[in-house]
Amino acid sequence: MPVNIPSLSPEQLLPVAGVTLGIAEAGIKKPGRKDLLVMALAEGAQVAGVFTQNRFCAAPVIVAKRHLAQSVRALVINTGNANAGTGEPGMVHAQTTCAALAKLLSLAPQQVLPFSTGVIMEPLPVERIIQGLPAAVRDCKADNWFHAAHAIMTTDIVPKAASRQVQIKGKTITITGIAKGSGMIRPNMATMLGYVATDAAITQPLLQKLVQHAADRSFNRITVDGDTSTNDAFIVIATGKAGNKEIFNPHTEEFCLLQDAITEVAAELARMIVRDGEGATKFITVQVEGGRSKDECAKAAYAIAHSPLVKTAFFASDPNLGRILAAIGYAGIDDLNVDGIQLYLDDVLVAEKGGRAADYREEDGQRVMNQAEITIRVVLNRGNASTTVWTCDFSYDYVKINASYRS
Amino acid sequence: MPVNIPSLSPEQLLPVAGVTLGIAEAGIKKPGRKDLLVMALAEGAQVAGVFTQNRFCAAPVIVAKRHLAQSVRALVINTGNANAGTGEPGMVHAQTTCAALAKLLSLAPQQVLPFSTGVIMEPLPVERIIQGLPAAVRDCKADNWFHAAHAIMTTDIVPKAASRQVQIKGKTITITGIAKGSGMIRPNMATMLGYVATDAAITQPLLQKLVQHAADRSFNRITVDGDTSTNDAFIVIATGKAGNKEIFNPHTEEFCLLQDAITEVAAELARMIVRDGEGATKFITVQVEGGRSKDECAKAAYAIAHSPLVKTAFFASDPNLGRILAAIGYAGIDDLNVDGIQLYLDDVLVAEKGGRAADYREEDGQRVMNQAEITIRVVLNRGNASTTVWTCDFSYDYVKINASYRS
Repeated sequence: MPVNIPSLSPEQLLPVAGVTLGIAEAGIKKPGRKDLLVMALAEGAQVAGVFTQNRFCAAPVIVAKRHLAQSVRALVINTGNANAGTGEPGMVHAQTTCAALAKLLSLAPQQVLPFSTGVIMEPLPVERIIQGLPAAVRDCKADNWFHAAHAIMTTDIVPKAASRQVQIKGKTITITGIAKGSGMIRPNMATMLGYVATDAAITQPLLQKLVQHAADRSFNRITVDGDTSTNDAFIVIATGKAGNKEIFNPHTEEFCLLQDAITEVAAELARMIVRDGEGATKFITVQVEGGRSKDECAKAAYAIAHSPLVKTAFFASDPNLGRILAAIGYAGIDDLNVDGIQLYLDDVLVAEKGGRAADYREEDGQRVMNQAEITIRVVLNRGNASTTVWTCDFSYDYVKINASYRS
Repeated sequence: MPVNIPSLSPEQLLPVAGVTLGIAEAGIKKPGRKDLLVMALAEGAQVAGVFTQNRFCAAPVIVAKRHLAQSVRALVINTGNANAGTGEPGMVHAQTTCAALAKLLSLAPQQVLPFSTGVIMEPLPVERIIQGLPAAVRDCKADNWFHAAHAIMTTDIVPKAASRQVQIKGKTITITGIAKGSGMIRPNMATMLGYVATDAAITQPLLQKLVQHAADRSFNRITVDGDTSTNDAFIVIATGKAGNKEIFNPHTEEFCLLQDAITEVAAELARMIVRDGEGATKFITVQVEGGRSKDECAKAAYAIAHSPLVKTAFFASDPNLGRILAAIGYAGIDDLNVDGIQLYLDDVLVAEKGGRAADYREEDGQRVMNQAEITIRVVLNRGNASTTVWTCDFSYDYVKINASYRS
């Protein structure tokens, strides 16, 4: 079961003026499942996004990137099939999907962004999507975020959504977001979809800057299995309905306030993805400090977070410090003096000077390992840079889920 | 169970003149297990080796590297405890072990190479090793390779050993090797120990060149879980007892013959390690061709070989081509045109032009996936470089073994 995700209720998710959401059962992979989501945006909404870095990016990603240059008025998201590795027919399917929704909403096809998630390398059953779209459009309403969070789930056990409000220059700004993803998660946006909407008014170039900032501190800081998917996207929508003066200058308090609030929502969604990591039983924060650069801190953090040996030891609540130190040792940091490193499990100093800390007692390590939430803190003691990565353990269920995904 | 490892018999393993091996029960981790191996070398034997690249390298590795400069006459190998991450006391323990064996054999301590494998970060119970050494020395005999292969096992299910003979300038040269390792395996020699001995005569500098060549084509081409251990070593011993003229020139047929034969033995041992990979049910050869450099071929090969999603799909015999393509896509190859790639499962062309191959039928992929041995062949179509990596799948048992390793 997911690690400490509070259960959602519809009332917690605040509507965002200028955004309506509609859900339908299109029967894409199997019948009887809400697998189609439409988000309709008011005229004037600004949209920005970041996408997977995988060279095999899926057809909908290619189409969404192109359409982002237009005045975007709708998003269409299907689960059950990722329309990835599908070649030219996949491109046609993504465009056909956009055209079908555009027709229902009296838009140009280029004003629609398509997203798909699910099995890769299988033809998208585009007719089922087209048949499902009218019901999704009819269902569109502002207070539908809760059901939208459910509709985009694949191997997720729980829906992921968050809301908050922030005061900017006397106006109340609302931010609500949903996300999906629980495997194939890695920096550069792996099989995750995230959609955050705000009613703030902000220019598109500044919104694009903001989305990159938020991604680098949220979805690009989580890893479940080190795999990067072909379909990831993180989209931020700003409808401008809150009545604030349009934000156009990054060197202002209002920009910083909005950026921080959206980043917080994105980070909360990202951590929920890790908490719901496939088979996860523990939520692990890997914090690396005292590096010469953020880059070398990230190398150490990801070496730990990706090590199957570390992850299985956490699953077993085994304070196997050596596996963590070994991962730091092979992280590829130049001239690393391992004698200078301190390793903490939460507040317990467990290793220093190349070995077990003198005062360390196994029962202290064990106490921390028994927790569902653990912070691994590595102090490199060679500089001032730091970084944080969130991950989870590696359990029988990870193998089970991924060995049976297509059956 | 291991994938297709023929069972060993003592007679298959040829003695190497100038090498005797002795085994004992030292009770290092628990009683009742052969956990100590001594290899005694005739005077004049040349020894060369390569060691883990992990910055946290274990005390015995540091000591063995130093002692390699001397005229080496004995090796001592214990399982049950890796003497890694043990700081200064660990160094003392490694040196004490060498001194104890040296005394029994009337050698200088610097003529002994120590090796340890097993749990890391726990103090080496050096007294038990010292107490076990006399029995191991008494047991030393030339036809003891079979038992030696058993004595160095940790989580290995089966012992790993191989022998062959080659004619060089009219002399019969014998080569016999043993290895251990089944998890934490990765390029740069992860928790694996390999010892290959030959009776050929060769200078030490040339033997060092040979060992690097052999490692790069064997132990550095296998991966089970992407973790690199603190203790790995691959040692080649040449006793000079075969009566061939000492090989001192790398540009000769005799050097090439010897190098090829030792590389073949090392590669056979390395593949046995993968076949016995923790929880392995399938043996997978990843062959990447048509790259601009060996380096980019290796990036693609390791991205595939390390992907938990690919490995769990192989465990499930699921021809989930998309996961393989996705791994190539995030391997970090510059300017990769994914439309130019061809992907084969054995002889079946499964993907090209960015998607499923036109003639591909799922039953053909399924037929290959049902096999215990599978070759993934990736043709990048952008150059002439190629590389091969051997790996295994990722099963429930991998998690089970690694979650319970210390209990």
